[in-house]
Amino acid sequence: MTTHKVSIIGSGNWGSAIARIIGLNVQKYDFFDNNVRMYVYEEIVDGKKLTEIINTRHENVKYLPGYKIPENVVAHPDIVTACDDSDILVFVLPHKFIGPTCKPLIGKIKPGAIGLSLIKGFDIAPGGGIELISNVINKLLNIDVCVLMGANLAKEVVDEKFCETTIGCKDPHNGLLLKNLIQTEYFRVTVVDDIPTIEICGALKNIVAVGAGFVDGLGYGDNTKAAVIRLGLKEMIAFADHFYPGAKLSTFFESCGIADLVTTCYGGRNRKVAEAFVTSNKSIEELEAELLNGQKLQGPETAEEVHVMLKEKNMLDRFPLFVAIHRICKREIPPSEMIQCIKNHPEHMNPDFDMPSHL
Amino acid sequence: MTTHKVSIIGSGNWGSAIARIIGLNVQKYDFFDNNVRMYVYEEIVDGKKLTEIINTRHENVKYLPGYKIPENVVAHPDIVTACDDSDILVFVLPHKFIGPTCKPLIGKIKPGAIGLSLIKGFDIAPGGGIELISNVINKLLNIDVCVLMGANLAKEVVDEKFCETTIGCKDPHNGLLLKNLIQTEYFRVTVVDDIPTIEICGALKNIVAVGAGFVDGLGYGDNTKAAVIRLGLKEMIAFADHFYPGAKLSTFFESCGIADLVTTCYGGRNRKVAEAFVTSNKSIEELEAELLNGQKLQGPETAEEVHVMLKEKNMLDRFPLFVAIHRICKREIPPSEMIQCIKNHPEHMNPDFDMPSHL
Repeated sequence: MTTHKVSIIGSGNWGSAIARIIGLNVQKYDFFDNNVRMYVYEEIVDGKKLTEIINTRHENVKYLPGYKIPENVVAHPDIVTACDDSDILVFVLPHKFIGPTCKPLIGKIKPGAIGLSLIKGFDIAPGGGIELISNVINKLLNIDVCVLMGANLAKEVVDEKFCETTIGCKDPHNGLLLKNLIQTEYFRVTVVDDIPTIEICGALKNIVAVGAGFVDGLGYGDNTKAAVIRLGLKEMIAFADHFYPGAKLSTFFESCGIADLVTTCYGGRNRKVAEAFVTSNKSIEELEAELLNGQKLQGPETAEEVHVMLKEKNMLDRFPLFVAIHRICKREIPPSEMIQCIKNHPEHMNPDFDMPSHL
Repeated sequence: MTTHKVSIIGSGNWGSAIARIIGLNVQKYDFFDNNVRMYVYEEIVDGKKLTEIINTRHENVKYLPGYKIPENVVAHPDIVTACDDSDILVFVLPHKFIGPTCKPLIGKIKPGAIGLSLIKGFDIAPGGGIELISNVINKLLNIDVCVLMGANLAKEVVDEKFCETTIGCKDPHNGLLLKNLIQTEYFRVTVVDDIPTIEICGALKNIVAVGAGFVDGLGYGDNTKAAVIRLGLKEMIAFADHFYPGAKLSTFFESCGIADLVTTCYGGRNRKVAEAFVTSNKSIEELEAELLNGQKLQGPETAEEVHVMLKEKNMLDRFPLFVAIHRICKREIPPSEMIQCIKNHPEHMNPDFDMPSHL
């Protein structure tokens, strides 16, 4: 039996949360090596190296304080050492760090290794369009990349409150392997093969959550927020349909779809910062610094990337909600325009609007 | 041009809210008669008849205090007088009152009149199955019955906070007529022809909201609630698919579907009472009396009706979430079983579960 070595690349809030799960799960099965390596971007915290703190106190005191990481998860400050001879590389870091973090790994990945990306967002393709993160990693490292997304607010996962998640994987054998690596009694995995739609959901839901936060900040209620969620979902489906032929409507009914969208629109940090944005005169960047302890918001950034692409393709009018949210983030239009946008959404203008028929 | 007379049958919270909209809308268009009659079940409030209070103070002081009803909406305590010669009958009363309320109207409805039902829930068919309320009214009065459902918490609608709603109507002419009767700047109507699915959503979402309330009462978070919403939605779709061949998946993407489900699971009274149910030893009936000012919950009642039917058809195992919610309401099993139910849901057991292909 092959014993699969696992490395985790990233050690933020979500990376540390998933390290808790993976560290325990590898001990349950013979087909995983018990030692898990975690690449940690070295920082000095209270005069000590973060890797040393994690390896002695078994806790990421900066990004997940108060929760133990199993002792078989060992922090490494060097990405090459952290991934040497690994069979499964779990990517869980902000998407703009992928390039610089992965470059030292080029040509050094074990043949047959696979990736599992937990990264939300898009990258900008050389031609100006958006590129899925799984593709970015695949092109950089020449490995198959699976994805994991779901209604998984990190705080609740570490508290072991029940939730579901979705893994996207083309190969059934790898799908089962990754399911065993991730699933616990309180964290239930469903595997589907529609990787692009899972990633599109994971990226675009953050834009919609910013819109939901605007509506909260404007003092509207649950009815209005439900309209934003519904119209946002329809734009997400239209986006998948247009740019990723073969996207399946059924994927939107997995945890990565509607469930994650709802959770993010009620409980996530994109919503929270967007609400504060309406009731202050501060920029998104100022609010991130104030409210997020150094973490970055994905919604406004993804909205900008999507806006660039839609503008280039002359399709801004097809996605008015995404466009309005981007322009509000930039303070090009006032937050109150959010309500005008949903009032005038083409969904209301055209009662014969149909779902894409081939999905 | 035909001038359509409109009657509203029912005057609770939602009935009074919709009367405010209809009263203003009939004044905008030549094709509606300016006088709207509202059937009010006569009660004595502070020593006065409720109909007299409504007709003098233009406010339903019992069920919608603090909000004016337009003066062209006139309350009648007699159902036959209230509906005489009417072209559009708007039904908005608890579903168990339909039979007794409508019986005096049998044979007295103007030929060609249509109904619009805002009633959530099912009736029990003579054979033991469930019956759609639109069918019940159709059989009683021999009129075409359209329906209206959406993410429409009454409190927010009367505060004129933007929302969407869905009208189900087979005839495009009537669809447009009803849209004009209901739509306002802040209350947007989409018309679709799939009446059964709209009603199924309106009834079943209340069961799911009870489940969401249990999860809140048990102290779980947004991730767990999203799982309940997702699994509930899948059972709603499976229910529509099985019992109403021809149901369209696209209808679930209208306001009556996902949007109303989300709103109800976060803001509605079924959620609220279910949360209190977990943290007390009281029955649903006791909590209704305490928390709802005489109004009745639809979720537990609908769960019971669905349970009776599923049991008869030997299909309890296909809808485990609906069944568990019913059994918890009856205190046959403890609320904590809600978590076991979603952990063991067949959605997780069968990764190859597909959406019904013909929807």
